[in-house]
Amino acid sequence: MNFSIIKRTLGWILVFEAIFFLVPLIASVVYWEEEFFTFLFTILLCASVGGLCLLGKPKNKDIYAKEGFVIVALGWIVMSLFGALPFVLSGAIPSFVDALFETVSGFTTTGASILSGEEIDGMARSLILWRSFTHWVGGMGVLVLMMAFLPLSGARNMHIMNAESPGPTVSKLVPKMRQTALILYSIYFVMTLVQLIMLLCGGMPLFEALNTAFAVAGTGGFASSSSGMAGYNSYLQIVVTVFMLLFSINFNSYYLLLRGKVKDAFNAEVKTFLIIVAVAIGAITLNLCFTQIDSFSSVGEALKHAAFSVSSVISTTGFATVDFAQWPLFSRAILILLMFIGACAGSTGGGMKVSRWIVLGKGAGHEIKRMIHPKQVKKISVDGKVVEHEVVRSINSYLVAYIFIFVVSLFIISLDPVLTGDFESAFSSVATTLNNVGPGTGKIAGPMGNFGDYSIVSKIVFTLDMLIGRLEIFPMLILFAPSTWIK
Amino acid sequence: MNFSIIKRTLGWILVFEAIFFLVPLIASVVYWEEEFFTFLFTILLCASVGGLCLLGKPKNKDIYAKEGFVIVALGWIVMSLFGALPFVLSGAIPSFVDALFETVSGFTTTGASILSGEEIDGMARSLILWRSFTHWVGGMGVLVLMMAFLPLSGARNMHIMNAESPGPTVSKLVPKMRQTALILYSIYFVMTLVQLIMLLCGGMPLFEALNTAFAVAGTGGFASSSSGMAGYNSYLQIVVTVFMLLFSINFNSYYLLLRGKVKDAFNAEVKTFLIIVAVAIGAITLNLCFTQIDSFSSVGEALKHAAFSVSSVISTTGFATVDFAQWPLFSRAILILLMFIGACAGSTGGGMKVSRWIVLGKGAGHEIKRMIHPKQVKKISVDGKVVEHEVVRSINSYLVAYIFIFVVSLFIISLDPVLTGDFESAFSSVATTLNNVGPGTGKIAGPMGNFGDYSIVSKIVFTLDMLIGRLEIFPMLILFAPSTWIK
Repeated sequence: MNFSIIKRTLGWILVFEAIFFLVPLIASVVYWEEEFFTFLFTILLCASVGGLCLLGKPKNKDIYAKEGFVIVALGWIVMSLFGALPFVLSGAIPSFVDALFETVSGFTTTGASILSGEEIDGMARSLILWRSFTHWVGGMGVLVLMMAFLPLSGARNMHIMNAESPGPTVSKLVPKMRQTALILYSIYFVMTLVQLIMLLCGGMPLFEALNTAFAVAGTGGFASSSSGMAGYNSYLQIVVTVFMLLFSINFNSYYLLLRGKVKDAFNAEVKTFLIIVAVAIGAITLNLCFTQIDSFSSVGEALKHAAFSVSSVISTTGFATVDFAQWPLFSRAILILLMFIGACAGSTGGGMKVSRWIVLGKGAGHEIKRMIHPKQVKKISVDGKVVEHEVVRSINSYLVAYIFIFVVSLFIISLDPVLTGDFESAFSSVATTLNNVGPGTGKIAGPMGNFGDYSIVSKIVFTLDMLIGRLEIFPMLILFAPSTWIK
Repeated sequence: MNFSIIKRTLGWILVFEAIFFLVPLIASVVYWEEEFFTFLFTILLCASVGGLCLLGKPKNKDIYAKEGFVIVALGWIVMSLFGALPFVLSGAIPSFVDALFETVSGFTTTGASILSGEEIDGMARSLILWRSFTHWVGGMGVLVLMMAFLPLSGARNMHIMNAESPGPTVSKLVPKMRQTALILYSIYFVMTLVQLIMLLCGGMPLFEALNTAFAVAGTGGFASSSSGMAGYNSYLQIVVTVFMLLFSINFNSYYLLLRGKVKDAFNAEVKTFLIIVAVAIGAITLNLCFTQIDSFSSVGEALKHAAFSVSSVISTTGFATVDFAQWPLFSRAILILLMFIGACAGSTGGGMKVSRWIVLGKGAGHEIKRMIHPKQVKKISVDGKVVEHEVVRSINSYLVAYIFIFVVSLFIISLDPVLTGDFESAFSSVATTLNNVGPGTGKIAGPMGNFGDYSIVSKIVFTLDMLIGRLEIFPMLILFAPSTWIK
């Protein structure tokens, strides 16, 4: 294990985090809030601890897959520990476990909150903005951002990007990783900006528009006020619906679109994703019309809420215009499934990713074909490219590890008395945190509830699940595997 | 597709079923019941339709994997259609869908019933005995029995046994398949007999002892009276607990024990199975003691019920001494997990089978090791034997197909108004039928409820799920796959 390079990278992460803190610092000046001093102190602390880690040049710059995973896992933990400080120091969230939950929920773009509506409304604006900004930082990944600006060796880039980026494989847009990172962040930045302008055009106040733009871009889901998305007009709700979907599509597709390769941009994953979204919206709208049409003024209204909820859940954003925990079982079951499907690889969304399911589904289909016609064996291919055996195996292991972590989490959560025996609350709370969605579908922690009433043990489990989900399991498991540390 | 050999095998299945019907026929004579005529008519019908199918010698005796799957899938469907006739013809279960549900539940050793306690108490004894006897027939598999008695070609045997036997692979005990089948059925028969004697020694009346012995041996779960297992004394409950576990262990282990190979008998699967059982019993007992100790007279009493319930669910029998749907969430979550784990391969139990989980778990573990030390790659091995890549791939596909069928079933079931939005009832009802357990953990279809109130559509879905679960997915999928029938 190359400890010196790990220390150095963690140092850089803290330096970058110090820079991120400038955003809420400026906000605290603009809104003339006493949180200015909290942020100033945190910046100085981040910068000095980070600076200390950067002292001394590492003799050995070698970095292997193992180091890549450890750097990403530790990096996210360190980033969250420091990111939680302003909430604790300002007194806004006195409990450190709660503050860490909130920060991890932010960075992992989950959007599950331990805060009640009143607590959010009573919070300083600079803190609210920091909370939303963590979504934007975590969506694309802070290490990917570092790559765009720091001169790291090629191999190092590759291993870190592999460990941090969502999806089974990482594809380089251009030969150099550094430029790939720069392109991705540019697309991310421009799309966030376009969304911000469209929100402002719809009459959303600047502060709320900034928060919403950050939360949607990262597919996070923290609301900047207790009314959330329900209070906005239809135009704004539709803009958010569209952008939630846009940010859950592989950013590579946008790069391909920019280069005029329309056919390549609409690959199997994007097509499948859009079909799933359309079918889910249709099925839920029908279900709502047949069972709860009285709660909507028209079929169009039901469609709008169905589209918003489906986009919100499959993109793993987690915003809500209505309390979908009150919807009929069929609609709730669809939403729970969408949590597991998740967004496209290479987007800011969470879940297991559509591309993984495509490979898993094709694998099962091939197995059946192989049983019927044993001699006609072909390899699995997606978009005309053969999926290598190693990738298929890794995705299958991913599914098994996913189920394992889900079950263990469910067991621990189910001991929490706050659930009062409600299986759906337990199941959907684990699903919503592990998949980085935000709200569940049960009585507790639904879109209109929050995670504040869960016990400390449950909150720690959820916090770990959010990290495990965002980093796609393996980095966290490798961090805690004894064989990583013992030769 | 070799249609003539399929027709011929289906013919033999009906002839065997006609012979099975002799058991309730004799009972109807003993108890002097008018159902005698129902059974006589069904026997004549089965024998003549079966005989017609046997007319003419097939030119081509070749049978491939494809035919094996189709024979098993069609065989089980035909067997269930005819098996349901006595219930309909006698008027005991007027609806054919209900009668089919009950028969499929019997043959697949699920034990889920559409009958209420009063309806069971009001039923003719010969019908009750037929219902329990279907468990015994289905447990080991009717096609495996046929193999022991009919001179089929070796290749045919192998493909059929592969498709019908529970577990990822079939191991031959002796070089000849026919003798393997004979040995397995002898062990099955003797163990059932020993259990029957032990039940009689505990004071259980002969009729109930026969029914219980059949239901436990097949890990079925149909009760012969409304009081079920709750009404028996502790000795009988403990005997049933032990035999439920014994019948969920790979029968190969008993053969190895008989041959003195004790170490080989306690293989990785058996050890893992016993550890899971012990941990689950311990965890549930603790959970019950901490939350519901008032409902038990002592810790020993709680332990007895925990042991019974765990054995009942992991063996996928489904008997109950208490209403575990009323237990705390943690205990219910464990029981739901046990449904999916299931029994050992090569037993009469259902679920996904412990050996599959061992391979899946080892696969995920290897993947993580590979990420940490890319050069130290070994193949997965169980009990010192390398698990071939094809087996691992097939098990992974199995898991994916399982999840797919589970989700589709859950969606259809969730539209049923009888659930009144209860996610746990929907989830556990699908889990309990697909895994051939019997009762669920929700408000509806718990151990003290039944499946009678579900809609016709739901009942058809459950019936299909029971067949899919018992035949381990692929035979049913292959039966309905277009490429099986189109060249």
